Amino acid sequence: MFGNVLSEEDKGCAGSDPARLAEMVPINLDANANAPVTQRVTDAVVAGLVGGTNPSSGHAGGAEARATITRARDAVASLAEGVFDDAVVFTSGCTEANNTVLHAARALRATLITTAVEHPSVLSPSAALQRDGVPVIRMPVGRDGVIALDVLERHLRSISGAIVLSVQTANSETGVIQPIQEIARLIAKRGDVLFHTDAAQSFGKLPLVLGDGGAHAASVSAHKLHGPMGVGGILLSDGEDRIHPLLHGGDQEGRRRAGTEALPLIAGMGAACAERAEQLDGDVGRMRMLRDRLEASIVSSVDGAAVNGVGSPRLPNTTSIRFEGRDAMEIVARLDALGILVSQGSACSSMRPTPSHVLIAMGLTEAQAFSTVRLSTSPLNTEDEIDRAIAAVERVCREVSRAV
Amino acid sequence: MFGNVLSEEDKGCAGSDPARLAEMVPINLDANANAPVTQRVTDAVVAGLVGGTNPSSGHAGGAEARATITRARDAVASLAEGVFDDAVVFTSGCTEANNTVLHAARALRATLITTAVEHPSVLSPSAALQRDGVPVIRMPVGRDGVIALDVLERHLRSISGAIVLSVQTANSETGVIQPIQEIARLIAKRGDVLFHTDAAQSFGKLPLVLGDGGAHAASVSAHKLHGPMGVGGILLSDGEDRIHPLLHGGDQEGRRRAGTEALPLIAGMGAACAERAEQLDGDVGRMRMLRDRLEASIVSSVDGAAVNGVGSPRLPNTTSIRFEGRDAMEIVARLDALGILVSQGSACSSMRPTPSHVLIAMGLTEAQAFSTVRLSTSPLNTEDEIDRAIAAVERVCREVSRAV
Repeated sequence: MFGNVLSEEDKGCAGSDPARLAEMVPINLDANANAPVTQRVTDAVVAGLVGGTNPSSGHAGGAEARATITRARDAVASLAEGVFDDAVVFTSGCTEANNTVLHAARALRATLITTAVEHPSVLSPSAALQRDGVPVIRMPVGRDGVIALDVLERHLRSISGAIVLSVQTANSETGVIQPIQEIARLIAKRGDVLFHTDAAQSFGKLPLVLGDGGAHAASVSAHKLHGPMGVGGILLSDGEDRIHPLLHGGDQEGRRRAGTEALPLIAGMGAACAERAEQLDGDVGRMRMLRDRLEASIVSSVDGAAVNGVGSPRLPNTTSIRFEGRDAMEIVARLDALGILVSQGSACSSMRPTPSHVLIAMGLTEAQAFSTVRLSTSPLNTEDEIDRAIAAVERVCREVSRAV
Repeated sequence: MFGNVLSEEDKGCAGSDPARLAEMVPINLDANANAPVTQRVTDAVVAGLVGGTNPSSGHAGGAEARATITRARDAVASLAEGVFDDAVVFTSGCTEANNTVLHAARALRATLITTAVEHPSVLSPSAALQRDGVPVIRMPVGRDGVIALDVLERHLRSISGAIVLSVQTANSETGVIQPIQEIARLIAKRGDVLFHTDAAQSFGKLPLVLGDGGAHAASVSAHKLHGPMGVGGILLSDGEDRIHPLLHGGDQEGRRRAGTEALPLIAGMGAACAERAEQLDGDVGRMRMLRDRLEASIVSSVDGAAVNGVGSPRLPNTTSIRFEGRDAMEIVARLDALGILVSQGSACSSMRPTPSHVLIAMGLTEAQAFSTVRLSTSPLNTEDEIDRAIAAVERVCREVSRAV
């Protein structure tokens, strides 16, 4: 039965033998969840692990560890504009970075403005701050997934006192990009705004500007660009000093984040950023070409397939496709069985799946949200993988019947 | 000149040639800062890194990642009594674990009681909570480094309402052990106390009991027992639910700690704990034998050398030696030049060294604190290393003149 589905190109790889297919290395079209590490990243992690000692140690080993961290800081900063290497604060990931920045709203006695389409690592700490008495505003988005600048402008005018504004650069589910530069212009006019952007998905894919024309602080994560899971950072514009530590303790990270540094992971993040910086245009062009091919083929060949946020500026590697009338969970599971890793637009919380808050905020129905699949490419994908994935999606969509 | 200092046994290794000595692998007697990783740990980290995908992913890779984390949880729990595997919450290290537990004092509207000899990752968040209005009591210790139980008992009686009590199991600088079991008895009598212990230094060296006869929550760290830097955890007694998340976001770690799991480091921590559990008695006996040999030789051969907290129960691997009248910073630097890694009893904050708060709390003078060196062994040290270290300490102490 596999023979009918897979295209001619597959013959050389797995042909029609299900057993052989199952043995194949999975095709990862879920880079937005985790982009696989490269050899260079692995080498850097192992070097930091095996040779590494505590960077706070006074002896020679400590100095070497500190030098490793400085090199990693340089590499991370090289993927942004307006960031000096000492303005990179390493954290355990983007969740910690987002929590740390938002937490400043309490110390600044600020109103927190954010959007309805943020990642849970922004929405959930916002809710916690709100329970603690911090005023929180969640801006809606249009059908295009983008916030309305005039709504933001009204909030900026009507609120008195300090504001912490947190707007993602790009959405993890749809790839839709927010107008960061325009927002920066609005907040520059008002003053007394700490502007933060969750750049987890855009870092290394889109230009990241801090300071003039950008945010004051950005959260990033390593594992979205082939670095290891469990490390990320806060990038700060020059002189930005409104961020307060969330983790208190030792004097690490310029007293902005306490705790023994995750030396192996920081070294790995540095390697991932250096690698991306060296081949930025090629990588971005490649992920875009692969995504465009995937998206165009699926939309043209599967009845009822449509792209969420298609008219908006989007990340080069992400497509959010709703397969109207079909159950995305079943599509994801069947693709998984064929060795193709994708994810639902919606997150599952414990056993009860809930529809994606992002898609609902864009005005989709629950049924449309539950029919959406996210596919995200990385430069490590091959054209052959994309073609095999297209064939598999077409097959699965023939098998999974449409509800009427 | 080296020939005069090093003992006969050294001849085979480096002899009297300084160049050859410098090329030698350093002797790590600074295991309390960072115990070097084992091969098994490295293998586990690489497996988690290269094969790993996001544990929250719905596809097969996600399930495999979750299984890796469950195995690691089992291994961590196996080094404690009274902990079920699901009551291990992975964090980015002991600093995050301590911050998370202490932070419950706010939600519980509790008084926080701690001690003057805690690690900065307890003292510093305590100070931050105090600035936020949480009442904080820091119990003193005696010359022996141990808290007075009658003082604690008085506090437990005189304070009304909830209490968060945080007492380290063992001190990182002196190795002095606090009477955790006796404290558990006192708090059981009172009720409404969340009893936490920072077990970073004792985990895998001393028995750790949670629940009856122990604390409700313990903070641990991987890199003190040959795991990687950047990962640790909170161990909870059965049913303990008073800990609130510090990092909000996704549903990871039973909703007790958000953020993509540091899969490679968690796998490495699991391997380190499994390895220690398998050879616990041998490892502990070995580090104790090496420490005793080191300590006894130095104290008997160096004039003015004395051990801080010597009469108290201590960790099996730690010795805090004050070299009365000598400058510890110079001793540490000269040993470093000889390839022997130790650390000062006192921590250096930026460029200005401050005397150890632990030693000052024990009633030592500033001069005594500044004359103290910490040496800490691990099972990876050899007897030959210990003998070479003893010879080097003796030599350095002859070179570094005593102030009168």
